Amino acid sequence: MTTHSPAPTLTPARPVVVNAPSAKQTMRALVKHHAGSELQFVADRPRPIPGPRDVLIKVSKVGICGTDRHIWEWDAWAASRIPVGIVTGHEFVGVIEAVGAAVTRYHVGQRVSAEGHITAGVDYNSRTGNAHIASDTRILGIDRDGIFADYAVIPEENVWPVHPKIPDKVAAVMDPLGNAVHTVMAAGVSAKSVLITGTGIIGLMAVTVAKAAGAGRIFATDMDPKRRALSRKLGASEAFDPRDSAFINEIRATCRGEGVDVLLEMSGSPAAYDQGFSCLRNGGTAALLGIPAKPPTFNITQHVVFKGATVLGINGRKMFETWYQMEELLISGKLELDEIITHEFPLEKFKEAHETMISGEGIKVVMSVNG
Amino acid sequence: MTTHSPAPTLTPARPVVVNAPSAKQTMRALVKHHAGSELQFVADRPRPIPGPRDVLIKVSKVGICGTDRHIWEWDAWAASRIPVGIVTGHEFVGVIEAVGAAVTRYHVGQRVSAEGHITAGVDYNSRTGNAHIASDTRILGIDRDGIFADYAVIPEENVWPVHPKIPDKVAAVMDPLGNAVHTVMAAGVSAKSVLITGTGIIGLMAVTVAKAAGAGRIFATDMDPKRRALSRKLGASEAFDPRDSAFINEIRATCRGEGVDVLLEMSGSPAAYDQGFSCLRNGGTAALLGIPAKPPTFNITQHVVFKGATVLGINGRKMFETWYQMEELLISGKLELDEIITHEFPLEKFKEAHETMISGEGIKVVMSVNG
Amino acid sequence: MTTHSPAPTLTPARPVVVNAPSAKQTMRALVKHHAGSELQFVADRPRPIPGPRDVLIKVSKVGICGTDRHIWEWDAWAASRIPVGIVTGHEFVGVIEAVGAAVTRYHVGQRVSAEGHITAGVDYNSRTGNAHIASDTRILGIDRDGIFADYAVIPEENVWPVHPKIPDKVAAVMDPLGNAVHTVMAAGVSAKSVLITGTGIIGLMAVTVAKAAGAGRIFATDMDPKRRALSRKLGASEAFDPRDSAFINEIRATCRGEGVDVLLEMSGSPAAYDQGFSCLRNGGTAALLGIPAKPPTFNITQHVVFKGATVLGINGRKMFETWYQMEELLISGKLELDEIITHEFPLEKFKEAHETMISGEGIKVVMSVNG
Amino acid sequence: MTTHSPAPTLTPARPVVVNAPSAKQTMRALVKHHAGSELQFVADRPRPIPGPRDVLIKVSKVGICGTDRHIWEWDAWAASRIPVGIVTGHEFVGVIEAVGAAVTRYHVGQRVSAEGHITAGVDYNSRTGNAHIASDTRILGIDRDGIFADYAVIPEENVWPVHPKIPDKVAAVMDPLGNAVHTVMAAGVSAKSVLITGTGIIGLMAVTVAKAAGAGRIFATDMDPKRRALSRKLGASEAFDPRDSAFINEIRATCRGEGVDVLLEMSGSPAAYDQGFSCLRNGGTAALLGIPAKPPTFNITQHVVFKGATVLGINGRKMFETWYQMEELLISGKLELDEIITHEFPLEKFKEAHETMISGEGIKVVMSVNG
Repeated sequence: MTTHSPAPTLTPARPVVVNAPSAKQTMRALVKHHAGSELQFVADRPRPIPGPRDVLIKVSKVGICGTDRHIWEWDAWAASRIPVGIVTGHEFVGVIEAVGAAVTRYHVGQRVSAEGHITAGVDYNSRTGNAHIASDTRILGIDRDGIFADYAVIPEENVWPVHPKIPDKVAAVMDPLGNAVHTVMAAGVSAKSVLITGTGIIGLMAVTVAKAAGAGRIFATDMDPKRRALSRKLGASEAFDPRDSAFINEIRATCRGEGVDVLLEMSGSPAAYDQGFSCLRNGGTAALLGIPAKPPTFNITQHVVFKGATVLGINGRKMFETWYQMEELLISGKLELDEIITHEFPLEKFKEAHETMISGEGIKVVMSVNG
Repeated sequence: MTTHSPAPTLTPARPVVVNAPSAKQTMRALVKHHAGSELQFVADRPRPIPGPRDVLIKVSKVGICGTDRHIWEWDAWAASRIPVGIVTGHEFVGVIEAVGAAVTRYHVGQRVSAEGHITAGVDYNSRTGNAHIASDTRILGIDRDGIFADYAVIPEENVWPVHPKIPDKVAAVMDPLGNAVHTVMAAGVSAKSVLITGTGIIGLMAVTVAKAAGAGRIFATDMDPKRRALSRKLGASEAFDPRDSAFINEIRATCRGEGVDVLLEMSGSPAAYDQGFSCLRNGGTAALLGIPAKPPTFNITQHVVFKGATVLGINGRKMFETWYQMEELLISGKLELDEIITHEFPLEKFKEAHETMISGEGIKVVMSVNG
Repeated sequence: MTTHSPAPTLTPARPVVVNAPSAKQTMRALVKHHAGSELQFVADRPRPIPGPRDVLIKVSKVGICGTDRHIWEWDAWAASRIPVGIVTGHEFVGVIEAVGAAVTRYHVGQRVSAEGHITAGVDYNSRTGNAHIASDTRILGIDRDGIFADYAVIPEENVWPVHPKIPDKVAAVMDPLGNAVHTVMAAGVSAKSVLITGTGIIGLMAVTVAKAAGAGRIFATDMDPKRRALSRKLGASEAFDPRDSAFINEIRATCRGEGVDVLLEMSGSPAAYDQGFSCLRNGGTAALLGIPAKPPTFNITQHVVFKGATVLGINGRKMFETWYQMEELLISGKLELDEIITHEFPLEKFKEAHETMISGEGIKVVMSVNG
Repeated sequence: MTTHSPAPTLTPARPVVVNAPSAKQTMRALVKHHAGSELQFVADRPRPIPGPRDVLIKVSKVGICGTDRHIWEWDAWAASRIPVGIVTGHEFVGVIEAVGAAVTRYHVGQRVSAEGHITAGVDYNSRTGNAHIASDTRILGIDRDGIFADYAVIPEENVWPVHPKIPDKVAAVMDPLGNAVHTVMAAGVSAKSVLITGTGIIGLMAVTVAKAAGAGRIFATDMDPKRRALSRKLGASEAFDPRDSAFINEIRATCRGEGVDVLLEMSGSPAAYDQGFSCLRNGGTAALLGIPAKPPTFNITQHVVFKGATVLGINGRKMFETWYQMEELLISGKLELDEIITHEFPLEKFKEAHETMISGEGIKVVMSVNG
């Protein structure tokens, strides 16, 4: 290494904020206040103070994610991962209220959402357009304070200005919609036959996204007859109950006896792995988003090696290619989300909101915070 | 090279045909009988005799291609390329009437169309799934007898069995539809903004194909107001008259000030090259199908090198990936071709058929031969 | 479907052969004569007679494959798959001795090898440049008579003319070399770090292929110190004994703490699956060629889904893109195969040949038949 | 848009620097002091002061680019683009001397190079891993002060930490080496035949890069016999004088009569465009880096449309995929740069340095500034 003059002392960066809240200002927030189920509504949480490269956002609307259900129910995963005391939530839309002194990209008053995967920006994936799978990711509402609150702080690199044509209700759920778009776009569905195994929130989004993104026939599986009906309404040619495996031969027969071109696995069910890959033609592509509770023991030799299949692990959304794809699909009016975003509650009714989502009565549930 | 016993004499392959027509059997055909405009209707053309690896097809319906217009009008290109005495035409659907003795893939009675690019099967592209750009291609109805006739002979490698859900009228034009599908799919339009410069027959097909294949906003240009209106009906967000170049800034402005993701050049007009690339964002993709009368002098340094653009030359259709893509789009009901296939005539009215197409009164014109 | 005149009777294709052997001509061959281990040398096997689209090849040299070892040892797989009475073997080079009457692509006297995956040519993969994963593949020397003999019959579609610069000894093993090339090229190694788990015959070939195809650093694992030494000689930066899993951290550390870009799994060992994927960086690509005796139970959620990895099942060789790639690598002198093709025996010494290969004393063993 | 409380006043960001130079500190620099040829050596240029997100780098070594020649000679392009008074130069390696207060990624003492394309980070390409073709790029040493000086200021997003295995002399020219790597990698040369038209500095680098990245046979053209000899030494199978166009048939003949798989156009010569595309096989890929003085009028219909060719415009280097690829190729020892980096001068001998490069006596010329 080149020699150089003695290294100077590195003084710490001082937070320099424009329009910063005073230390005394408070806000409403939903907090995981103890190691157990539910969340606590807190009226006097101190407002977060942005660092020099952060923006402070006044939150308009938020979405409740499947992850938020795990946190609400405090299952084993949540207990092992979530720091007690945190503000939860990561799906949102809001308006920039203040910016750190070194912020250059955005300004006060912009309506924005944001990507919840926060990275230092120095690893391979962060520097090549794939920050969504960076090695050092910290996630909003999981590893640090989230957005179930009046205000939230976000690094400017993560901010996404929302197109005027996209209403707040939809902008609030661009995070999970991005999961569906990333899965569909990674696999590539244009002029292809597609099977979606599992139509929970993201699976249902994937039906309308796959149709919009150019899939030919779309097949879906789900045990819930209401979800199957909704799949058909959103564009599926046929939706099957996976408990009767006859659908495998039916799909294969209608696809030249060979199988579908693309499998989108969205259930995390080991049985769905087996069924889905049995429906996939040789040389087909499978994109895996669902997270099995334990590793599925499917026959990789038969399903992947002999078939010459391509398997894509899907995590998050591309930063930010997926966001641009979402914007184009949304502003061209190709997505049908009205029947997927079923309920909206004010923040104070967070308990009803979570229960509506957990019971399955609602699909995607949104809470309005300031708007 | 390894030595071996003396090379035996190679006797020529004898044609061995199943269900072959007798030498005396004749048929109706449209023939380029002299070096000049129009075609001649011939009632007693001898039926072609298939070789051992050919099929004999009884033609049901045929389409009139833009190429057939050149042949009809006997322009400089046609005069330099078309052998006088040939039966013309290459877009069709029919039924297999007889098969050569060494045919193994298809059988008498199958309803089929076929790919008109015929190759020896030994060059790089033929052996890697890209026979459409083989170095030794001979084209049906151009280099050898075509399908404006009761019967035609096709090598079995070129046969495409038509799905039962696809009606004859549509199956007859899978060749030009394939041009549109190949262009759209090569560029990749899923969740992207698209500009189509020139909406002749294939350009209009490209509008409905791009929409079906997942494009977001679709912009089109054409000087003809009827074609612009039809573009909008088929799915274009906006269609512009290219004589007013203000559309370039309009498109760029609505695409983040950067431009469209994809350009599909279908006019062959030098001005369209310039306009189209001016609308393309940095890093965008242009697929070029239109054939300029003379090489366009557009600024490749500005439009391609500095922009980091990708440019794809498009010729024919992929053999046979494009045909599978077409089938999936057609049987899933995503293409609107009713307003593109505007006229149908019996073979005997070939003169009206050609004139309807040439005058612009019709768009795609089909002739019924035997069905 | 279009109606048509009554379907004529289809008479069967008659074999019409140029330079065909008479029925009385015989040849030497290695035959799986009974359901048990070893092969039998037969001096008077009738010469095979080519059909109208086949070529008859006089075999010069052959290679012994790992599959031939299974057949020799008559393990459970072989007992369940191999028809007793068959001539085995599928790796070879030879000279065309006769051609069927409908053969158009090749001629008597050409030096050729051939692709052993034989398909009807009508399914999706056969028609899109991926016949290697066709749904109806029959394999030479496994499902039908192979090439451990003086003569063999091959469909002309499967023939590969051998470049004059490639010696017989190498041409005889283009089949397994093609496995290595397909694996390396499918993953894409250019300017990437690569880990190869398992350096049997194809794994060793993959080391020299990866180097030639542009890999940066190449890491390998194998339990055999001789194979590890040979890996290093062929271009591996480092070769590790997988019984000490410390190599995982060592590889990760030297790859920015993130891991290798590419994993080529060539062992079929469940432990190698786990180790290999542990070395793979987020967003990396794994190509799986090795065939586990039973499905590995590796953690697909951790290794593929969360990592955003791409997994490619590898089977055979692309027909025929891989063959062109091999030719380019071979004629540009970039592959080192001299230390991989370790032994050559005459056909009559087939027992020594097989035992040399099975004992591990030899790596790739070739038998000379007629040359 | 969501309503919100009155927008607060946005106060400007204050520069906050760690270890900042005092305003009185000066440095040596090469300055374009007037609108004319050459540069002026200035001993007392004020040291630049980094903003909150910049690093201050003490420059070790710099490279002289072809662009610097245009600036030196003050041709029409330079006169139209370069602001008089600027410090020029953009290829370098150095050591971080100070960091702005909001810098988080790098620290004082790190040995670094940097990407000279500076963007605001808000357009499509900047947010999708393609900042090298951002719409708002400003270039170091062209649009703002460069690195022919003791010190330079660089935004932290643009910094590239240099691997310890890469010597300063090589690290100083990673910018132009990146042009060669980006061109080669964009085209994809692994197991392919390649033609490089024009072996100036970057063309010669492309020869060694193409070989390292896995090309099969490499052909090159150049009018200078010394460059042709060096091409062969670096790995070209053959190098031709383009004034005798017989090489076109020679290349086509040795490539199956079809042509090379890949063309890398590095001359910007209209004749090379025609010759290069004439050597390209149907379906081949051409990557265009050379910048013609005026738009070439080559026949795009014949060379691109009918051929089904893919054409890639190449500009800069991918930020930062190309840098990772370079690092892997360099640390695995696959690149031969010793005969390309021919001369090294101290900064004060800048006149000899520029003249050595301009005369063609040297190829890549490096100047040492502080190391």
